[in-house]
Amino acid sequence: MKRLTILGSTGSIGTQALDVIRNKKDEFKVVAISANSSVDKLIKQIEEFQPEYAVIMNKDLLQTVKDKAEKYGTKVLTGIEGLEYISTLDNVDMVLTSVVGMIGLRPTIAAIRAGKDIALANKETLVVGGRLIKEELLKSKSRIIPVDSEHSALFQCLNGENKENINNLILTASGGPFRGKKKSELDDVSPEMALKHPRWNMGRKISIDSATLMNKGLEVIEAHYLFDVDYDNIKVIIHPQSIIHSMVEFKDGSILAQLSNTDMRHPIQYALEYPNRTESLIGYLDLIKNNTLTFEQPDLETFECLELAYKAGKTGGTMPAVCNIANEEAVELFLNNKIKFLDIPKVIKEAMNKFDVKYDFDLDYIFDLEEKVREFVRTII
Amino acid sequence: MKRLTILGSTGSIGTQALDVIRNKKDEFKVVAISANSSVDKLIKQIEEFQPEYAVIMNKDLLQTVKDKAEKYGTKVLTGIEGLEYISTLDNVDMVLTSVVGMIGLRPTIAAIRAGKDIALANKETLVVGGRLIKEELLKSKSRIIPVDSEHSALFQCLNGENKENINNLILTASGGPFRGKKKSELDDVSPEMALKHPRWNMGRKISIDSATLMNKGLEVIEAHYLFDVDYDNIKVIIHPQSIIHSMVEFKDGSILAQLSNTDMRHPIQYALEYPNRTESLIGYLDLIKNNTLTFEQPDLETFECLELAYKAGKTGGTMPAVCNIANEEAVELFLNNKIKFLDIPKVIKEAMNKFDVKYDFDLDYIFDLEEKVREFVRTII
Repeated sequence: MKRLTILGSTGSIGTQALDVIRNKKDEFKVVAISANSSVDKLIKQIEEFQPEYAVIMNKDLLQTVKDKAEKYGTKVLTGIEGLEYISTLDNVDMVLTSVVGMIGLRPTIAAIRAGKDIALANKETLVVGGRLIKEELLKSKSRIIPVDSEHSALFQCLNGENKENINNLILTASGGPFRGKKKSELDDVSPEMALKHPRWNMGRKISIDSATLMNKGLEVIEAHYLFDVDYDNIKVIIHPQSIIHSMVEFKDGSILAQLSNTDMRHPIQYALEYPNRTESLIGYLDLIKNNTLTFEQPDLETFECLELAYKAGKTGGTMPAVCNIANEEAVELFLNNKIKFLDIPKVIKEAMNKFDVKYDFDLDYIFDLEEKVREFVRTII
Repeated sequence: MKRLTILGSTGSIGTQALDVIRNKKDEFKVVAISANSSVDKLIKQIEEFQPEYAVIMNKDLLQTVKDKAEKYGTKVLTGIEGLEYISTLDNVDMVLTSVVGMIGLRPTIAAIRAGKDIALANKETLVVGGRLIKEELLKSKSRIIPVDSEHSALFQCLNGENKENINNLILTASGGPFRGKKKSELDDVSPEMALKHPRWNMGRKISIDSATLMNKGLEVIEAHYLFDVDYDNIKVIIHPQSIIHSMVEFKDGSILAQLSNTDMRHPIQYALEYPNRTESLIGYLDLIKNNTLTFEQPDLETFECLELAYKAGKTGGTMPAVCNIANEEAVELFLNNKIKFLDIPKVIKEAMNKFDVKYDFDLDYIFDLEEKVREFVRTII
């Protein structure tokens, strides 16, 4: 029985994780859950899973949750201290970090310090805090099992293999809704067009990142920190069918690839039950129905964001954080029709030029930087 | 430094193995080699690799080899005793069994009894002697690392995984030169047509087995013994590009696949240097050039041999041996224009009906059976 804390249990990954757990009652016990402000969802989850703890980040909603949670014996906390508290409970084995944004960093670090295994679904943890996390891992018995489908694929391909033998990590990308398009065709793209992802049904922010390929760029940075592989040895290949979720090429010319139906519940379940593999809700892949897998080179001229992420990663230090934060703001501006689709990389580039890279930094510095970058982006338009 | 005995060093696998070793002089030392009667090739190999021992199976050629080998300090032996001797040498770590035919069984068993690791390239070892080999492995520290590209792929996909978690082994098959053809189109197929394999350049016998899909059927039986998986959980899928060499589907719906250029030196090197992976002669797979991978269901009505092999495997006992031996004879008859292409499965079926299955058998029984099956096949035409 694995005992879990789920940070961000009412979000997309959180609810899918609870779907997996609902199906595996003998494998998992939910000890603690947390939500930002989705109070109704959180209360329903408390009713169903009767966790020992629940955290509602929005302090104004604390009493509402407390009133409902009382009869299940669930203690209700609030704020970042609440998140850190439920990430370090003695009787918790693994923390699923599926909160969105930089808020994920503090409880993840707390969990690592407490020796908990991490099922990692918070992008910022590695993109922004990669160096800090690596330092913490060196002093801890914690392991990070990635939840992102691409990193889960890489992790699975590397199972039982020696990392010294890696030649390249090959991240697959669907190519998004604008695959094959040239820059001139993307000038007047609307948010609605960009939100139509061909394969995965995802949130708005990540759908735009998928359309710009920034999503893949940030995954490159995560892969760098997760598997300790140089950027020159992390490749991206377009694979429109999204059946192969990523591959590892070894020094002997052999490639291992991981395939499955496109359902996030696979990598979630894999991370939660690693190293086990039990029956799942995603079904078996039908290779006779999905009988053609194709590959293409990514178009770096049209999709500049991918190169910007590589550049930020290679520069290192605070640059991936600047790139990620500027991208968040730029996407928000695009979704609100304040800037054009092709302005997204321009805005990021300006921010990356504006902020000097710093190699020796702590969490406070990063949170301070976040504010500055957001302000800068909002002012330049 | 891994010290090797190569049984069948002048054959296709043997010479490719020496090609790998020639490129990895700091990794491997060739302690012993053997040939059936290719005396010139063997002498050249003695000159180049200066092994401690060489075996020439043909006794009439013993003195010829001795005369040439003397100046390199290579001791020359002959016969099955010679093969067994060089398979059990104290200073040998691994035996590559790349001899063709049932002759491979005795030295392989001897090597297992002596605790040597086996790089297995002899089909009969598992198809005919699967049960015997499994019994020997239980009493030994030996490991079998398969050299066949499909089994090497499965082995690589299973690295670091728990066999309990396997749902299906998925063997890929190119489909051979007659993929997509119906029975009525194969009535007048000539040996020349059957020998034209679209992807691999192989020997005559194995090329015909590839055209009938018997090759894949025998691989199913090998996979059964090698990975201890039920026949119902071993699938065959047609993959004409032969880029994915096989796959493992796990209970959680995840598939791991192994890809590489089609060059036997990959699985040979993998088996020889396992668990290492060093740079190889096969080059890296270019997925932009090989940008389309497709899959089809095998046509079991047209390619009856595949079903016959499944049937033989499921029956167990001596039946896989009967199936394999009858196939060898039938292929020989077809190559000599004595029977038609579509007669191959008919002949095998008759042999499988003729010989009662025996579950408790030893090597002598099998060798005796071999003669009887060969005689039977030769008489029925």
